[in-house]
Amino acid sequence: MDYIAVVDTMFARVDMGSQVLDELSKCPGYKERFEVIHSSVPGFKDLAVECKRLIENSRCAIAIAIGMAGKAEIDQVCAHEASQGLMMARLLTNTHIIEVFVHEIEEDDPEKLVQLCINRARSHARNAYWMLFEPEELTKRAGQGVRQGADDAGPL
Amino acid sequence: MDYIAVVDTMFARVDMGSQVLDELSKCPGYKERFEVIHSSVPGFKDLAVECKRLIENSRCAIAIAIGMAGKAEIDQVCAHEASQGLMMARLLTNTHIIEVFVHEIEEDDPEKLVQLCINRARSHARNAYWMLFEPEELTKRAGQGVRQGADDAGPL
Amino acid sequence: MDYIAVVDTMFARVDMGSQVLDELSKCPGYKERFEVIHSSVPGFKDLAVECKRLIENSRCAIAIAIGMAGKAEIDQVCAHEASQGLMMARLLTNTHIIEVFVHEIEEDDPEKLVQLCINRARSHARNAYWMLFEPEELTKRAGQGVRQGADDAGPL
Amino acid sequence: MDYIAVVDTMFARVDMGSQVLDELSKCPGYKERFEVIHSSVPGFKDLAVECKRLIENSRCAIAIAIGMAGKAEIDQVCAHEASQGLMMARLLTNTHIIEVFVHEIEEDDPEKLVQLCINRARSHARNAYWMLFEPEELTKRAGQGVRQGADDAGPL
Amino acid sequence: MDYIAVVDTMFARVDMGSQVLDELSKCPGYKERFEVIHSSVPGFKDLAVECKRLIENSRCAIAIAIGMAGKAEIDQVCAHEASQGLMMARLLTNTHIIEVFVHEIEEDDPEKLVQLCINRARSHARNAYWMLFEPEELTKRAGQGVRQGADDAGPL
Repeated sequence: MDYIAVVDTMFARVDMGSQVLDELSKCPGYKERFEVIHSSVPGFKDLAVECKRLIENSRCAIAIAIGMAGKAEIDQVCAHEASQGLMMARLLTNTHIIEVFVHEIEEDDPEKLVQLCINRARSHARNAYWMLFEPEELTKRAGQGVRQGADDAGPL
Repeated sequence: MDYIAVVDTMFARVDMGSQVLDELSKCPGYKERFEVIHSSVPGFKDLAVECKRLIENSRCAIAIAIGMAGKAEIDQVCAHEASQGLMMARLLTNTHIIEVFVHEIEEDDPEKLVQLCINRARSHARNAYWMLFEPEELTKRAGQGVRQGADDAGPL
Repeated sequence: MDYIAVVDTMFARVDMGSQVLDELSKCPGYKERFEVIHSSVPGFKDLAVECKRLIENSRCAIAIAIGMAGKAEIDQVCAHEASQGLMMARLLTNTHIIEVFVHEIEEDDPEKLVQLCINRARSHARNAYWMLFEPEELTKRAGQGVRQGADDAGPL
Repeated sequence: MDYIAVVDTMFARVDMGSQVLDELSKCPGYKERFEVIHSSVPGFKDLAVECKRLIENSRCAIAIAIGMAGKAEIDQVCAHEASQGLMMARLLTNTHIIEVFVHEIEEDDPEKLVQLCINRARSHARNAYWMLFEPEELTKRAGQGVRQGADDAGPL
Repeated sequence: MDYIAVVDTMFARVDMGSQVLDELSKCPGYKERFEVIHSSVPGFKDLAVECKRLIENSRCAIAIAIGMAGKAEIDQVCAHEASQGLMMARLLTNTHIIEVFVHEIEEDDPEKLVQLCINRARSHARNAYWMLFEPEELTKRAGQGVRQGADDAGPL
């Protein structure tokens, strides 16, 4: 049995964690080939160490880190720090951590922002599944301008 | 017995450390299930290594790092460096460190700034307690736009 | 037999991975002295750990990390994080990782951008080959203003 | 016997190292309870590794890193890199390193700048002494808006 | 016999490596007390790991990393990443690495830029020699506003 870690925050204003959990539950082998471990932290700076703990202590084979950056300028610096933490966590564990970050400034309309969150969460859940069990799905799409959340940019 | 590290600075203009200590003293199991180790450093760049020392040498299960950034532009860079240090300390110890940082520029009115400091300090003290003993309290609030210091942003 | 890792992304809008693979296939000793291992990841923040895994688990002697940064301001921050990850991966493995990054903002004309991608990918594939088997080719060109993608700047 | 490392640079335009050495020589226990090891490097990017070497190879219990940032914009980036290095050195050695950095842009008047350098150097020398031998002096001042170089900001 | 690593890039538009090699050949003890190992890499992001390899695998006692940043804004970010890499390499090896970086934007006039490159390269080669064999030369100049490339700023 493989384990996938899903970590989200209280800070985010959309419950992306549930979207990821639901998407993973529809992937082939759910509860047979892989199980999901879910945990929550206060903000996105707490994601990296929680992912690392789940990878090292609970033997997760991959992690999905879900966060949302607020509108203030300081939130952008915090997002950068959170991302740097995830980068270090990946390298220290030799394990992929899929970063599902949404910035509130990406979309002014709240409804569209919610939809973007849902799309990004679900696409990245699928990516995590592929990385673990069907890496050829990624190779097939290399250099094709694939996006998560918004429409694909497509190849040039 | 579990230990919670609380580290604050001489630089900060509000005694947030005392707020955190008081809040923790009201949490269930204080002095029975957990104790608090408090220490102080000159500025917030000294927080990370002090937290790491308390985690590694004094076996603290979690740390709360409390700092305040001044108004100058250089203070923002220093805050970034201090935060990066806390991120590395988390990852090198596999231990959560709750970052309680207030920027003086968040609030012009000194009284409101003091209140923001108090609120943030106490909310994060509670978060640290939850992470250690009641993680389900965090999961319950995942994706709900919870804030510390100001009002919650709420879910979208 | 030596192994060269080639890692690209689904995010990139030009299939630079194929260019690198083709260029390497024309280098002396292909399939005799060295072989190539190719894998793909969602975005460029995933490159560093994938390179590190291929170096450490699949014994690659060098890696080529291929990514493209989008036009948004946030994409520049992400590129910086991706590059920092590659830097850490190099230092943690003591192995060279050639960074083949193109920024969409480097060139407005899509056709020229594609050409720039192709040139950069192929020049860096050649660099990787040189680093592994003919390091004197690099020494010969030291301080000569050599560029990959655009024309050489030349010596002053 | 404890050892305190003092590292300064040729780049700085004020001899802060001598100020630190003099201040430490007036602290209780000088040459009895603690001794000072002084060394100099070209610029402030060289401070971190020199501190780490003195901590690890010469068994210093704490280090004081003294640098000055020039007026050019690039000097600010270099100061950031130097500070990040000190942060890593602290965390890799589990040892406090007091950062005594002055930015030339802090003060236009050369005489006042020299005075600021002297004050900051001496206050931080005292802090280092306190951290090693009288940590309660720091706790006493926690949250009191203590500054080094300029006047204290004071509590709010 | 001690070894000094000298690493330069194909990207740089001035052959600073040769200047460093020549300057070192004039230092006391050349080929008797110390020898030089020279290697070249594509760009300055490749310097850190090459220095680390020469320090760890070829037992160099110090390294000189030589690079030039182009005029584009992105080149400044790359220089920052290259410098961060050198900082990590220093700390992971406990060895000094002298950073000889020139930014094309430091000087518009090509002839003056070349002269600046030559001066900086030679001064830093001398610094490396001093750090290894005559550290008192550095201490003598501490806090004196010494520069490499341009005129000394001098003490205040």
